[in-house]
Amino acid sequence: MTALEAMGERARDAARAVGRLSGADRNRALAAMSTALLEQTPDILAANRRDVEKAKQGGMTPALVDRLRLDENRVRGMAQGIRDTLALTDPVGEVMEGRRLENGLQLRKIRVPMGVIGIIYEARPNVTSDAAALCLKAGSAAILRGGKEAFESNAAVTRALRHGLETAGVTAAAVQLVEDTSRETAAQMMRLNRCIDLLIPRGGAGLIRTVVENATVPVIQTGVGNCHVYIDESADPQMASAIAVNAKVSRPSVCNAAETLLIHSGAAPRLLPSIAAALREKGVRLRCCGRAASLLPGVDIEPADETDWETEYLDYILAVRVVDSLEEAVEHIARYGTGHSECIVTESYANAERFTAEVDAAAVYVNASTRFTDGGMFGLGAEIGISTQKLHARGPMGLRELTTVKYIVNGSGQVR
Amino acid sequence: MTALEAMGERARDAARAVGRLSGADRNRALAAMSTALLEQTPDILAANRRDVEKAKQGGMTPALVDRLRLDENRVRGMAQGIRDTLALTDPVGEVMEGRRLENGLQLRKIRVPMGVIGIIYEARPNVTSDAAALCLKAGSAAILRGGKEAFESNAAVTRALRHGLETAGVTAAAVQLVEDTSRETAAQMMRLNRCIDLLIPRGGAGLIRTVVENATVPVIQTGVGNCHVYIDESADPQMASAIAVNAKVSRPSVCNAAETLLIHSGAAPRLLPSIAAALREKGVRLRCCGRAASLLPGVDIEPADETDWETEYLDYILAVRVVDSLEEAVEHIARYGTGHSECIVTESYANAERFTAEVDAAAVYVNASTRFTDGGMFGLGAEIGISTQKLHARGPMGLRELTTVKYIVNGSGQVR
Repeated sequence: MTALEAMGERARDAARAVGRLSGADRNRALAAMSTALLEQTPDILAANRRDVEKAKQGGMTPALVDRLRLDENRVRGMAQGIRDTLALTDPVGEVMEGRRLENGLQLRKIRVPMGVIGIIYEARPNVTSDAAALCLKAGSAAILRGGKEAFESNAAVTRALRHGLETAGVTAAAVQLVEDTSRETAAQMMRLNRCIDLLIPRGGAGLIRTVVENATVPVIQTGVGNCHVYIDESADPQMASAIAVNAKVSRPSVCNAAETLLIHSGAAPRLLPSIAAALREKGVRLRCCGRAASLLPGVDIEPADETDWETEYLDYILAVRVVDSLEEAVEHIARYGTGHSECIVTESYANAERFTAEVDAAAVYVNASTRFTDGGMFGLGAEIGISTQKLHARGPMGLRELTTVKYIVNGSGQVR
Repeated sequence: MTALEAMGERARDAARAVGRLSGADRNRALAAMSTALLEQTPDILAANRRDVEKAKQGGMTPALVDRLRLDENRVRGMAQGIRDTLALTDPVGEVMEGRRLENGLQLRKIRVPMGVIGIIYEARPNVTSDAAALCLKAGSAAILRGGKEAFESNAAVTRALRHGLETAGVTAAAVQLVEDTSRETAAQMMRLNRCIDLLIPRGGAGLIRTVVENATVPVIQTGVGNCHVYIDESADPQMASAIAVNAKVSRPSVCNAAETLLIHSGAAPRLLPSIAAALREKGVRLRCCGRAASLLPGVDIEPADETDWETEYLDYILAVRVVDSLEEAVEHIARYGTGHSECIVTESYANAERFTAEVDAAAVYVNASTRFTDGGMFGLGAEIGISTQKLHARGPMGLRELTTVKYIVNGSGQVR
């Protein structure tokens, strides 16, 4: 048995133990985890300094180093995050539906814990506590596999969380961190079907692709967002500009940021110059199709090619394409979109209805920024990621999406 | 582009067309499919005779030949099955939840079609029409890949269904049959991520395992049922015997049939002899642990080993094991069960509650036969299979389980 298989077995046992806890007991454990995180702040910061030092020496970009770095405030934020999760409604035990069958059998469909949830993630150490807390709140055990850049930080956070669990009388095996951060163990984890009920990769497109290609355990794909803002012929000029700018620049590094602006040819001559100016003013580089370029004489733009339509820049770059119809916009989105968040800006009732009906994505917006696709915004309370696949969960995933169901059937001797 | 990729592209386009149809239009298409099936009965039966002839020459067992064989009645049954599906409530368009956010955004979570559903199945030609009808009713296109033994039958059925679609003005590409029944195309189909949104294997454990091992498209595992009946110390003797016999013999070849009988050591001396006699009378062979064997002197039994606990016999064979406690029964089920259907026979309230809480399976029964796990029985109207995994669907899958969701967000210029 490999170390990972042994960890899987421990997780499976822990999941059964956690699954038997009442909501109150799970909340007590979460409170203890939050407290332990605060108490062990010095250890966590010391470990994080070692990670940061190593990352700098290794030439990590300042933006990534910033995502990796913890300070007292951030640790406090992580502890508060656990408290916030604690305060959410317990998803476990909800009777989702039920009826009495003609033969007298009483059927109930009940929400139950998933079991063991694996999370593979990249540089941010706060994911360690966020994910552990969500899994525990949902009645499941977690196997966490963070990036090697954050290993020391993740290990220190996990030690604190496990100490909290033990303080509350819950098995520490409910939260385990994979210590070997090699690709081999990640690959092993993706095939640990006997022990992992659900695997969620959180990270860039490369990680997601690797997991989807290699996993035999059930996976939920998250977070790749090649999102579009389509400005229809009838769009309100002010609104079109405000939404295009907000969707791109309010936080370019996240998955719900827009990557391509599609604009109807009937509106482009009138609207594109001012929208482009507003974007340029915010420091956005524009990669334009030929027709868009011809409408922006003297503006500092770059030519777009096929690759641009496919790219999730996650940066101050926006592809721009002129289309001749709503159909062409829908077609473009069907071809290049990743099914995350798509927006139409329009004053036409019919076009709003057609766009929302025909665009196949987790979230489809009329006259609002794609940036709203978020568990907090949607009222889920917390979020483990944003699903871009169609099975089990689509869009922001909260506690409910970390559970499964079970039919309980009470009889009095019925046979068939 | 391979033939299968081209088929996938056609299915993707067809899914968009079908997704735009109203429920009434989909129903008209289903009615036409049903009619076409009846009209083309002679062709279908002729094709089926060729399959049956070949199967007999190839030495197929009589039971399998029976599953393969169609007659007028069976074709009428298939046509009626499509009519029954037509009559079900349209799952598409249901507003599952919704609210107005503080910023005025109006959020709705809507049930929408899955897109393209792939089904890989084995010998029964009726799956072709059942699956096609369910997928169409749910607003999706279907790519069907049946077993090579039934190929001529499946092709004739598909021709009829596609003729029906065309009669109703719907693209025939909404229902496509993979013509190359080699393992290679099945393997290709499992990796057609750009075109298949959901793949459902229907068949034996070997097929399911192959699909889970090799698929990169989202899969729902179905139908492997190593189901248990646990007879608790307090069980009513009559009820225990009736349920054990029914769960085993009412239809041994199906996934919700029981494969192992667990019996509490406090009840075994009293109950096992009569239960064993009732099972033997129905022609059931018993594979017994040592303690069970010692309670059945003179009864014609066979010794059980580890393999028996793992085996889904799908036959008139039942493994029998004496356990010393409910915990031991739960433990056995956790170790060997496939998460399908599990039953306790008990008069103890506390034990009924513990068993239903602690056994992790799609359906957990108190004092009723495992044989009730079925879409029709559970009131789903029709069933595409029984999910034994925890993601997306668990237990009998009906039309709702063939759909996904989409958030539609209506705004008036909101930015973040």
